[in-house]
Amino acid sequence: MSNIYIYSPASAVRDKAAFRRGVKRLKALGHEVEIDADALRAHMRFAGDDATRLAAIGRAAASGADVALISRGGYGLTRILPELPYKAITKAIEKGTRFVGLSDFTALQLALLAKTGATTWAGPALGEDFGTEAEPDEIMLACFGDLLDGSAEGSGWTLPLADAKAHATKPKRHVHEATLWGGNLSVLCSLVGTPYLPAVKGGVLFLEDVGEHPYRLERQLTQLLLAGVLDAQKAVLLGAFNRFKPVPGYDRGFSLKSVTDWLRSKTKTPIYTGLPFGHVPTKVLLPVGRTVDMVVEGRDALIFWGHEH
Amino acid sequence: MSNIYIYSPASAVRDKAAFRRGVKRLKALGHEVEIDADALRAHMRFAGDDATRLAAIGRAAASGADVALISRGGYGLTRILPELPYKAITKAIEKGTRFVGLSDFTALQLALLAKTGATTWAGPALGEDFGTEAEPDEIMLACFGDLLDGSAEGSGWTLPLADAKAHATKPKRHVHEATLWGGNLSVLCSLVGTPYLPAVKGGVLFLEDVGEHPYRLERQLTQLLLAGVLDAQKAVLLGAFNRFKPVPGYDRGFSLKSVTDWLRSKTKTPIYTGLPFGHVPTKVLLPVGRTVDMVVEGRDALIFWGHEH
Repeated sequence: MSNIYIYSPASAVRDKAAFRRGVKRLKALGHEVEIDADALRAHMRFAGDDATRLAAIGRAAASGADVALISRGGYGLTRILPELPYKAITKAIEKGTRFVGLSDFTALQLALLAKTGATTWAGPALGEDFGTEAEPDEIMLACFGDLLDGSAEGSGWTLPLADAKAHATKPKRHVHEATLWGGNLSVLCSLVGTPYLPAVKGGVLFLEDVGEHPYRLERQLTQLLLAGVLDAQKAVLLGAFNRFKPVPGYDRGFSLKSVTDWLRSKTKTPIYTGLPFGHVPTKVLLPVGRTVDMVVEGRDALIFWGHEH
Repeated sequence: MSNIYIYSPASAVRDKAAFRRGVKRLKALGHEVEIDADALRAHMRFAGDDATRLAAIGRAAASGADVALISRGGYGLTRILPELPYKAITKAIEKGTRFVGLSDFTALQLALLAKTGATTWAGPALGEDFGTEAEPDEIMLACFGDLLDGSAEGSGWTLPLADAKAHATKPKRHVHEATLWGGNLSVLCSLVGTPYLPAVKGGVLFLEDVGEHPYRLERQLTQLLLAGVLDAQKAVLLGAFNRFKPVPGYDRGFSLKSVTDWLRSKTKTPIYTGLPFGHVPTKVLLPVGRTVDMVVEGRDALIFWGHEH
């Protein structure tokens, strides 16, 4: 089967049981798993100091593995963006290594896209997705399997009913040849104004976040709106925004829905929700930086990027 | 004495007792207090919908008051930045109205500076500063009094010992004619990349925040670093960063101090801490957009802007 290299570019692994379960599961799926020497290192909140994590990323790029998979996200990549080994990662991708991850990993993915245009994969992390106490999600596993055997060609999902209504006037929408990009909203917003945000025009932008109250999400989406990022896209896809604490008696109707409604009133770019991606078990894999087509018809949405080349 | 206009440009006032205490205190200080008709309105989290708050800001500008003081911060200004009555506010400031506030109000202050160059005042809010159950802070009151009688010429503070050490090689530093600007770090970062962040070069940038874990603060400071904002300043002043929850057993030494140490290793711009400003009772008033001089000698720091003109 495939060779998978596990490394820790961001936060320290605290749930070592989940880490071990994840490795075991990948092996049970028939994969060879190589664990980076510093995958379980810890320095403050980080999986080793900056130099340690930069070296780990370099080893992942040099591994020759089919997949370089992050142990977890957390926090740690934005502060080492200027020192990332962009050339080595890009070379590894050209040779066939797929870099997979999410959340804080968005920083590396977008910086790489900005610097070299190379494609990485927004997808699972070892601990949270493969190391679950329950069985890993079947759709996530199927998408991961498709990536490994080269048969991943696209991802589809059913729009929530409210969303299908929001676009009822457009029975069929076809987006041609758009750059798919995005990831974690907080991390993406922290790159605005820096050289590490790719200047994607006419793209399809996907976003997710975890543990952020809707007022924070709205402030961040407003930043993208006022910076002209949303208007410059052909479509915006909202994935999961979860694990935040509403403030009863304070929000009084202010919610994810009111945020989405407000945003739709401020940009002509269509905003679709329900993308199965984010800090949830059911997640598809999405090629960040790849040219995609997108079709929305009724409640069916499909992103298609064709065969890997 | 002075005429003070109270209005609500952002979050709804929930603590009405504090609001009433604040009004009473201002009156007891001898001021005339005018309360905007919609100061206590509520719409979701906001003090009225967008149009209501925009109209309230317009009335504050038209009030002819000596001070237009926000009832509170919260959240609500970033999403109405494109519609703010910049000309009316600027005209009011030219006629002598000082706009005072903090936190979410940073959005209006920086957008106004970017659009028209007008000076506003980073300072207290009605509820949290004048409406306290205990007596309001004496330094805050003295600074507010100085602003009202036109004798506010500068603000000084004592650097924390650790900070004096960080700059021990520079026994005296004098910054000449720099634009003072800044405010709430989260709000300021949400303006990066938009037309509402003033492009200040060679300035003195002050920052504060509340309820943000150091890893979030570091990510935001990193954004300012990578966007070139920190390197472009002559000095960075850190005020209060408080009311966040450390994560015991997870942070393991990652703290405000480690964030400051790291930042100092990444920029040559001197970073001074201990500025008495933020979500704390003891706060000075700072003119956002004014040209200031700054002197640091030993543990004494002084910002001086001279007489009001």
